[in-house]
Amino acid sequence: MAKELTSRSENYSQWYNDLVVKADLADNSAVRGCMVIKPYGYAIWEKIQAELDRMFKETGHVNAYFPLFIPKSFFSKEASHVEGFAKECAVVTHYRLKNDPNGKGIVVDPEAKLEEELIVRPTSETIIWNTYKGWIQSYRDLPILVNQWANVVRWEMRTRLFLRTAEFLWQEGHTAHATSQEALEETERMVNVYATFAEQFMAVPVIKGAKSANERFAGALETYCIEALMQDGKALQAGTSHFLGQNFAKAFDVRFATKEGKEDFVWATSWGVSTRLMGALIMAHSDDNGLVLPPKLAPFQVVIVPIYKQADQLDAISEKVKEITAKLKALGISVKYDNNDTKKPGWKFAEYELKGVPVRIAIGPRDLENGTAEVARRDTLEKQVVSMDNIETFVQNLLDEIQANIFNKALKFRSEMTTKVDTYEEFKEVLQNKGGFISAHWDGTPETEQQIKDETKATIRCIPFDQVPEEGQCIYSGKPSKGRVLFAMAY
Amino acid sequence: MAKELTSRSENYSQWYNDLVVKADLADNSAVRGCMVIKPYGYAIWEKIQAELDRMFKETGHVNAYFPLFIPKSFFSKEASHVEGFAKECAVVTHYRLKNDPNGKGIVVDPEAKLEEELIVRPTSETIIWNTYKGWIQSYRDLPILVNQWANVVRWEMRTRLFLRTAEFLWQEGHTAHATSQEALEETERMVNVYATFAEQFMAVPVIKGAKSANERFAGALETYCIEALMQDGKALQAGTSHFLGQNFAKAFDVRFATKEGKEDFVWATSWGVSTRLMGALIMAHSDDNGLVLPPKLAPFQVVIVPIYKQADQLDAISEKVKEITAKLKALGISVKYDNNDTKKPGWKFAEYELKGVPVRIAIGPRDLENGTAEVARRDTLEKQVVSMDNIETFVQNLLDEIQANIFNKALKFRSEMTTKVDTYEEFKEVLQNKGGFISAHWDGTPETEQQIKDETKATIRCIPFDQVPEEGQCIYSGKPSKGRVLFAMAY
Repeated sequence: MAKELTSRSENYSQWYNDLVVKADLADNSAVRGCMVIKPYGYAIWEKIQAELDRMFKETGHVNAYFPLFIPKSFFSKEASHVEGFAKECAVVTHYRLKNDPNGKGIVVDPEAKLEEELIVRPTSETIIWNTYKGWIQSYRDLPILVNQWANVVRWEMRTRLFLRTAEFLWQEGHTAHATSQEALEETERMVNVYATFAEQFMAVPVIKGAKSANERFAGALETYCIEALMQDGKALQAGTSHFLGQNFAKAFDVRFATKEGKEDFVWATSWGVSTRLMGALIMAHSDDNGLVLPPKLAPFQVVIVPIYKQADQLDAISEKVKEITAKLKALGISVKYDNNDTKKPGWKFAEYELKGVPVRIAIGPRDLENGTAEVARRDTLEKQVVSMDNIETFVQNLLDEIQANIFNKALKFRSEMTTKVDTYEEFKEVLQNKGGFISAHWDGTPETEQQIKDETKATIRCIPFDQVPEEGQCIYSGKPSKGRVLFAMAY
Repeated sequence: MAKELTSRSENYSQWYNDLVVKADLADNSAVRGCMVIKPYGYAIWEKIQAELDRMFKETGHVNAYFPLFIPKSFFSKEASHVEGFAKECAVVTHYRLKNDPNGKGIVVDPEAKLEEELIVRPTSETIIWNTYKGWIQSYRDLPILVNQWANVVRWEMRTRLFLRTAEFLWQEGHTAHATSQEALEETERMVNVYATFAEQFMAVPVIKGAKSANERFAGALETYCIEALMQDGKALQAGTSHFLGQNFAKAFDVRFATKEGKEDFVWATSWGVSTRLMGALIMAHSDDNGLVLPPKLAPFQVVIVPIYKQADQLDAISEKVKEITAKLKALGISVKYDNNDTKKPGWKFAEYELKGVPVRIAIGPRDLENGTAEVARRDTLEKQVVSMDNIETFVQNLLDEIQANIFNKALKFRSEMTTKVDTYEEFKEVLQNKGGFISAHWDGTPETEQQIKDETKATIRCIPFDQVPEEGQCIYSGKPSKGRVLFAMAY
């Protein structure tokens, strides 16, 4: 029996949760707010990692690994960083358990109290800049272009699988530069890498832009981001890249001898994406039948299901499938052949639809006679009977078409769901009845942004890089504005 | 100036520490017992990961991810496991910090105390088997063949980079099976995968065998291991694979409906290798000049150093290097061209020797005239002048030869350092004056093993799989024995 999903129109949030669990992507664990990423979900994450890692290396970065724990005092060194990060976090206070003297299991040994508490990293700027101090003496040691793949912990009160979890997996790039300009260029380079990845691999169109001061990373002078739109009209921040100026170098006293023989503090960037991307991927494309995966990130791109009554029919089909599989694999296409005898074809069809496999091929005895196969595409659910000759080329083209189609569909949706407004009334009306991105004039002050947020819950998602200069009036304060920014409700 | 290493004969332990730090593999961090794995060291770990991951997938395993934190009570559920693991560990007791009311930085918020403490995973059997309970109902759900790449924490009192650190990186496989036999086969399959990896990629010969009861994993019925010998004559356990019986299934109540319609507890294995492998790799091959890396795991296999006085000479050399590099890369060989103008060739030679780059090619103006290049191999430090024609084939063969040579050298060393003894006097004498593996008869009792350990610090490294049946007398108790086991001092 197929696993039923709540429909999106009925309850979008429930649809998402159902989908994540029923498509075997992730599940809640016994530990509050921490998830288990199941093999099928993790296989998608591995593909995301592999592509990003390749792109990081192509742009000159190397990987390294820094400690999970950060001494509490490190957080106090960068004033705004501590406000943003050191509050809701997991604190290690002891390093030993012992048998309960009363015989009730095990208890924390009060004698094994740490002199200084350790924080499970919520992000690693502090421990990394403390380390960089030992690595950097002169301009010759710069730039340092390091990335780390790691788990981090932020003690979120309200969690949702992939979107907001206490522990999550991510990568965090931490670079050190001799000049402000070089660091700014790096900040921009990496937000561009994220945008390219999101659009070309995830098939999710994104808006690149700068965060307003209110939404900036704690400790950054500038935060660039990519913002995606989900099917419920809410925005999702999918990646950020921060220009940290000399803040962390000053906090950890990281100075270097310049080419000119002077001394200066080092310039920094940091940038990251996380398993939150999984949430964006799921919500951007999927439908009421289940997941829709872009072929470039699908754990397997093609599933072949045999249709048969007798064992000899299965044998003949399997023989043919072997041929087809070899041809597909030669083209770099990943294939699963599901000849499991304990499940009916109908069950399998529903299962692979739920799991978002881009292409399904069904082959029965009549197909063998006719030299044909039934090919179904997941994105449109269309089926067609095609000749087995050159089926591999057909499938290859179809995968490209699916990748392009789901991107274009998402782009069209975003375009329809982006609304220009010129009054606050209109703003509230669109926010309530339509959702999506709202392009509006803003006076540039944190106060106005905060008031709009307090009144409507909408935030400025970004000041787009491709903002068109345009004289206007702030929808809230009426003060002059030089261009529109994007507001939205957000995840 | 070259970075000086302490020589092995002078102080082996200091040599190791010097090497790890000076070859830019890892460094101590600001957090007690936690290391920073530097880019060069991490690049080796990435190669190790990639090969192992491929081997795991080829043997049918998939990756997943489980929480970093484990509720304290989970450890009490498996009686022997708690004794082995729940003692020296990092304990999270609070989930929030706040500004110190006295204005001194930040303090733990006493109101944010967890109801139940969380342990930072020292290993994940408990949280995983608690999860498997939800995944397994029937024999159709088995086997589960899951691996996790993760960080773990064990609060070691005396730490050494890579060999014993509070936090380390590893993989842990956790499989679930319908029968005892299948689980035992899996346990053996994975120790074989580890042995193949160690010998074919790390070029480290290993002994496969079973642990004695004293040395078994806490909660296992059987622990298989691979044991390697370091140049100082001490053994290093490089990987373990555990048959866990039904212990964890019983502790977490994981039952399944069998094919025959009955109910049974699930059978388990777990297996892991860690960044400790880096320690084995370093110690097995390196010399007083620095690291010696097996070509299959070197971050780059060939370094090319130009020798020149004027800029136009460098240009001509660089032109030629471009050609050679393209040819080498076409054969899948990784190359670094070090044309850094601020360092002399002598400095570079010493640096790449220290970093263990398998092959160094030096090219000067006279080489260009003669159509030759100087090729140096790191393992023997031999140099020879070769023709540039087909230099790529020469290098390819040389890399294979180096890979084989360092394995054979280590194998010869181990063979010379494995001594059969028949009396306890001889045992102590060899242990003190020669070291290495000692092959001796043992009566099979934990008591005898413990007494030998108390008196000599030597432990039984393993009961080798290829143990030859041989009647004998225990060197300690004089009681009958049916075969020799391997003793050694160990890391």
